[in-house]
Amino acid sequence: MRQFIVLGHRAPTTPEFDLDDLAGGAGRLDVLCRCVNAAFFLSHGIRDSVRLFLVLQDELTIRLEGSELRYLNPDERNIGSMLRNGIEAAGEAIGHQEVESSPGIYGSSRDLKTILEAIDSDAYIQLHERGEPIVDAEPTSDSVFVLADHESFREPESALLAEHGVDRIRVGPTPIHANHAIAVTHNFLDTDGYTTY
Amino acid sequence: MRQFIVLGHRAPTTPEFDLDDLAGGAGRLDVLCRCVNAAFFLSHGIRDSVRLFLVLQDELTIRLEGSELRYLNPDERNIGSMLRNGIEAAGEAIGHQEVESSPGIYGSSRDLKTILEAIDSDAYIQLHERGEPIVDAEPTSDSVFVLADHESFREPESALLAEHGVDRIRVGPTPIHANHAIAVTHNFLDTDGYTTY
Repeated sequence: MRQFIVLGHRAPTTPEFDLDDLAGGAGRLDVLCRCVNAAFFLSHGIRDSVRLFLVLQDELTIRLEGSELRYLNPDERNIGSMLRNGIEAAGEAIGHQEVESSPGIYGSSRDLKTILEAIDSDAYIQLHERGEPIVDAEPTSDSVFVLADHESFREPESALLAEHGVDRIRVGPTPIHANHAIAVTHNFLDTDGYTTY
Repeated sequence: MRQFIVLGHRAPTTPEFDLDDLAGGAGRLDVLCRCVNAAFFLSHGIRDSVRLFLVLQDELTIRLEGSELRYLNPDERNIGSMLRNGIEAAGEAIGHQEVESSPGIYGSSRDLKTILEAIDSDAYIQLHERGEPIVDAEPTSDSVFVLADHESFREPESALLAEHGVDRIRVGPTPIHANHAIAVTHNFLDTDGYTTY
């Protein structure tokens, strides 16, 4: 199971936003839509063994489960509408419980700390421009990859990750968008570290 | 200069389409928008040394020039609107001449054959699920990468590429979307074949 956590620093936590304005009024939800695209889509299907957590303003979390997803198309507008339903569901969730908005999409009022404790991994990886090269770090499909959206990791986020003994990894010499980093990471794992084609 | 050609098999050749329906009525222009995103965007800037040709239904071509691009945002809706202007400009183009619709975006009524002859490369590469592994083929930044959108290469397209002595390369064991293949190819070149981080 490949797991990704993406931190959406300005993404909306209520569903009152316009699908025509994902990159503006919706707090750059477009960035997270592209991460969903990169995490799940193959040429002719969905990656079953992928789980993605989108943590929005450290207030609520949308979990997407590859093996259960239905009705999800790869375009930003469709993904945006599915996430909007997930955000609405999160608003109805009690405590840390999840509410399913459509098959494989769950909203909850959980923050990053709660998510890290729930996953309880011993292989967290922060994808970070100042990390160790991915070819040296050799992450596996059991790793949990944590990425920031278009804004850098904030100090409390990095501190929280450090408490969980996170490794920092970079995927190249050039800082790239989060969705591109997910595509590259999938490729690294798909090819067993660039050995299997 | 890294060059990419993406073949849009159902993409619109006239500008009368709705930005709210890029994945439907606009003939999957969303796929090409994501290729533009993958080709040009870095975390804090645009890849200068990239040229992208979008060949729409083998009727017209939009050329995007990294060193000249302005006003381009990474979201599909913005890219779709810029491409729509390029398609409109192509409709006004005479012969094989190009008309610039905005800085770095040019429309023309050129087909794949004309584009291949104009580029005149001796290093065309077809990114194809049954190609040679990219780590063995060792493409360089002088290579011209040709990709199909969500539909496979058509027989006349592959035949035309074969005339130009094209190599077939795959980027992994799993067929992936064109935009993900562009992200992976950039990463291969950014890291000098996975050696420089």
